Amino acid sequence: MSIPRPAELADFPVIITLPVQWGDQDAFGHVNNVVYFRWYESARIAYFEQSGIAALLEQQQLGPILARIACDYHRQLNFPDTIEVGSRVTRVGSKSMTIEHAIYSQAQQAIVAKSDSVVVIFHYGDNVSHAVPQDVRAQLERFEKKSL
Amino acid sequence: MSIPRPAELADFPVIITLPVQWGDQDAFGHVNNVVYFRWYESARIAYFEQSGIAALLEQQQLGPILARIACDYHRQLNFPDTIEVGSRVTRVGSKSMTIEHAIYSQAQQAIVAKSDSVVVIFHYGDNVSHAVPQDVRAQLERFEKKSL
Amino acid sequence: MSIPRPAELADFPVIITLPVQWGDQDAFGHVNNVVYFRWYESARIAYFEQSGIAALLEQQQLGPILARIACDYHRQLNFPDTIEVGSRVTRVGSKSMTIEHAIYSQAQQAIVAKSDSVVVIFHYGDNVSHAVPQDVRAQLERFEKKSL
Amino acid sequence: MSIPRPAELADFPVIITLPVQWGDQDAFGHVNNVVYFRWYESARIAYFEQSGIAALLEQQQLGPILARIACDYHRQLNFPDTIEVGSRVTRVGSKSMTIEHAIYSQAQQAIVAKSDSVVVIFHYGDNVSHAVPQDVRAQLERFEKKSL
Repeated sequence: MSIPRPAELADFPVIITLPVQWGDQDAFGHVNNVVYFRWYESARIAYFEQSGIAALLEQQQLGPILARIACDYHRQLNFPDTIEVGSRVTRVGSKSMTIEHAIYSQAQQAIVAKSDSVVVIFHYGDNVSHAVPQDVRAQLERFEKKSL
Repeated sequence: MSIPRPAELADFPVIITLPVQWGDQDAFGHVNNVVYFRWYESARIAYFEQSGIAALLEQQQLGPILARIACDYHRQLNFPDTIEVGSRVTRVGSKSMTIEHAIYSQAQQAIVAKSDSVVVIFHYGDNVSHAVPQDVRAQLERFEKKSL
Repeated sequence: MSIPRPAELADFPVIITLPVQWGDQDAFGHVNNVVYFRWYESARIAYFEQSGIAALLEQQQLGPILARIACDYHRQLNFPDTIEVGSRVTRVGSKSMTIEHAIYSQAQQAIVAKSDSVVVIFHYGDNVSHAVPQDVRAQLERFEKKSL
Repeated sequence: MSIPRPAELADFPVIITLPVQWGDQDAFGHVNNVVYFRWYESARIAYFEQSGIAALLEQQQLGPILARIACDYHRQLNFPDTIEVGSRVTRVGSKSMTIEHAIYSQAQQAIVAKSDSVVVIFHYGDNVSHAVPQDVRAQLERFEKKSL
């Protein structure tokens, strides 16, 4: 079965689909602001898996650490709904990369929130940040189909 | 009983103290990145209460809506620990205000994360954003002891 | 598209499907025990909607209140996985009903946890518990295809 | 500083104090039913630490696994409030123990919920359940001041 991706997420190579749960609502009757960050986390991990860089990093005893994340709330989300969270890498620095997300509401047929975040590459053996390996950078450019 | 405030939070007029719970940890054994946003929410609400602006807004059928929030993670947090979350308003715009937070770890005796956020004033009757009322602005300046 | 239901959930008239999220794991690297209760809540609400009793109750200013819930953990759950949560009503008392759930792991192809719970019917206007209305009882028996 | 324990928790040798956070509320404006289980988890871990059995178990490569937990909700909890969660062991079986909790609301000055749970002793090296060691049983009886 092939579900058509929303056009609003066309520029995001990785998209995950998640249900809004009743308990995601807070006392205002909307999805609570904190829940979005759980979804971004799930989206980020899906990106690392599907892009192939999780495996590349692991071989080199490296892993991603979230250094910063922001969310812009454009519309309130309600229960019930199903959301699609897009992920893309927009920049690769010397030791970090920028990941962007957008959340699309199937009920509202619109983007309801966006996020940008910075993930630092970390060497677990040496316990320090580490340069983005060349093969990771190359893989990201292949996956994103552009120079980063 | 008067607990001394950490010097690192001296510029934050509102500070709440929260325990790190075991379940705040994720599979990496550190406090999960999402948990910080629950704490920021609690700190934000404490600020609105203690500054007196929650009451001022409510009288005018106004309320705050979170438009954007970001977190910078400086250090990993571990269980067990007790954290103190400071809040301050650093800017009041025409329809919004900027709130900053810092999280201090008692175990590490250091700031472990910082946040900046934008809260928009919203009229619940009219369902639209609304100018920051003059009395709210004045109260914030009194509370922060500076021009905003 | 028709996904075959697992045989283990054949006796549950309502089944919801949910992804295990990375952040559902705790410091032991398994899905945390608390997360199951969020899933049971989602399953319970789906049951009330799909059985038609949410609408019947609402017409009479009645609603369900969770009085008790228990979970038996049979197997540890890991990320990634997709779970299916079945719900059924097994007893209707004078003012309450018993709801049972089972969680099926697609990865393990087995039931990983079970729950029983008691939901009390509550009159929101009068703020007291209330007899299960006859039409709700009849609807539940039709939906469950048995005498309750 | 010595805070007097509520008389309602006199029979619980371990008590933890936790704030109700705004975000603990759900769309009904009460503390969500799932949140109680996070608190029980924190209380359970405090019990294992303070009773000294966490250390005893760890020396023998053993650890506790939650096999079952139930919660009875007696009263709704509101924000703001501070709760105290008591923990006690009421039975030690051959391979498991029963732990009970009660949650006391400082605002309501009453018990708002109770829990009973079964924790199984597990050998992490052998990956199987394991008899409760004699020194753990003795330590629990000393700590609870009764035969178990």
